[in-house]
Amino acid sequence: MDKKSPIGVFDSGIGGLSVLKQFIRFLPYEHYIYLGDTARVPYGNKSPQTVQEYSKQCVKYLLNHDVKLIVVACNTASSNALDVIKEMSDVPVIGMIIPAVQAALRTTISGKIGVIGTRATISSQSYEKGMLEITNKKVEVISQACPLFVPIVEEGWLRHPATKLIAEEYLEKFKKDTIDTLVLGCTHYPLLSQLISEILPGVMLIDSGEHASVSAIRILGEKGLLSDEKDDYDIRHEIKFVVTDVPSTFFEVASRFLGFEVSQPEKISL
Amino acid sequence: MDKKSPIGVFDSGIGGLSVLKQFIRFLPYEHYIYLGDTARVPYGNKSPQTVQEYSKQCVKYLLNHDVKLIVVACNTASSNALDVIKEMSDVPVIGMIIPAVQAALRTTISGKIGVIGTRATISSQSYEKGMLEITNKKVEVISQACPLFVPIVEEGWLRHPATKLIAEEYLEKFKKDTIDTLVLGCTHYPLLSQLISEILPGVMLIDSGEHASVSAIRILGEKGLLSDEKDDYDIRHEIKFVVTDVPSTFFEVASRFLGFEVSQPEKISL
Repeated sequence: MDKKSPIGVFDSGIGGLSVLKQFIRFLPYEHYIYLGDTARVPYGNKSPQTVQEYSKQCVKYLLNHDVKLIVVACNTASSNALDVIKEMSDVPVIGMIIPAVQAALRTTISGKIGVIGTRATISSQSYEKGMLEITNKKVEVISQACPLFVPIVEEGWLRHPATKLIAEEYLEKFKKDTIDTLVLGCTHYPLLSQLISEILPGVMLIDSGEHASVSAIRILGEKGLLSDEKDDYDIRHEIKFVVTDVPSTFFEVASRFLGFEVSQPEKISL
Repeated sequence: MDKKSPIGVFDSGIGGLSVLKQFIRFLPYEHYIYLGDTARVPYGNKSPQTVQEYSKQCVKYLLNHDVKLIVVACNTASSNALDVIKEMSDVPVIGMIIPAVQAALRTTISGKIGVIGTRATISSQSYEKGMLEITNKKVEVISQACPLFVPIVEEGWLRHPATKLIAEEYLEKFKKDTIDTLVLGCTHYPLLSQLISEILPGVMLIDSGEHASVSAIRILGEKGLLSDEKDDYDIRHEIKFVVTDVPSTFFEVASRFLGFEVSQPEKISL
């Protein structure tokens, strides 16, 4: 395990590619292994024990591939399995909750923070709990589950009039409660950030993937484990895609998340 | 000079606060000195010799205040004075051109990159030259000066219908030329990024300040010079504002750029 080792990113499915996108943006010289447990997606409606079990299998795969950092791109795994993952890993582990929580606490001025996520994430109150754990700062957290956002993003209807109507309904309460910061608590939501900004102008959107990638630069930099910068701009993103199932929409959805065509994924069993 | 030393950011005026904003977002635990040479703004229409002279004075002030990193937030100074500044500095120096150029080269897939800036920046061709210098990758750069954007941003008309009309006219050529990446080549333009994204959906916008701050994390991290993270989220941004003149609109414009109220600046002579 050294500078040239890959960064391992895992998610229950394809959504974590929005996290990978942020890593590529700020850490373009790294190699990546992206593992999507697409045969067992979603994790959100499974028990914590099962989520831990599945997460451990994903992490074991990444550790066997000599990663220098593990990114838990899945909100559910970040909420329910981060301790277990850290325990089994001899490399740093970054989840989705803490980077977003820290960024939200630093960003808010009014102290009114909104959180949107899947039903499972919102009812777990991971973000509220995360905020209470790390600060005494007085904040008011207003949550809203947006269950239709995931299927809409997967359908690719990012600018459809129906999407706008749905987003306006979900986000209505934030207008009344005048939040100044909104945590996008689901890997799919950054694809809707432009629409969300139009509905909530002036509200700072917190993208977990973006802040997780910045944490990674800090952690790897301090350990001397950042890849050397390269001058060759033609060599793009060395990414190995690994999935437990290849859904028919894989290429279409993956390229929507990443902004470029993806290579054939390797199919494995965990 | 150690971990706790401030990061020095200088600009010909107030626009560099958009760069400072990105630094605060990703490096919230740092102390900052922001120096705006507001008595001599703008640098864009001055000779390279004068820009170098003024820049040296700004940098001397920052070095005397024991900064661990110098950020040249001014596009004109970055284009015309970076070598001179590096020569006189015993700390790392980050300008605005290279981080944006690197990010644009990594981002583009089509190879068609747009650049917008002030008249001075566009006619200097700094970005085109920067791209040619660091890569053999075949790229086509399409430039457009947007001289009205600076006064509009300072007036605060970010969402005014007139602003939309003006932006649509300036950006028209990029629709025809189907760029996939657009460099915001002026410190004021990130405040218009939402509007620009609405006019050019799907085009990746490159914000120099954002990429400069990511470079800073890498550089400081590898030197062991990043401030320790703090748990206290109530202590916000330790920023010292220093200006060579206090324009009547300082507080209004500064808080628009930063998103929060700024403290009284210290007025100095260089």
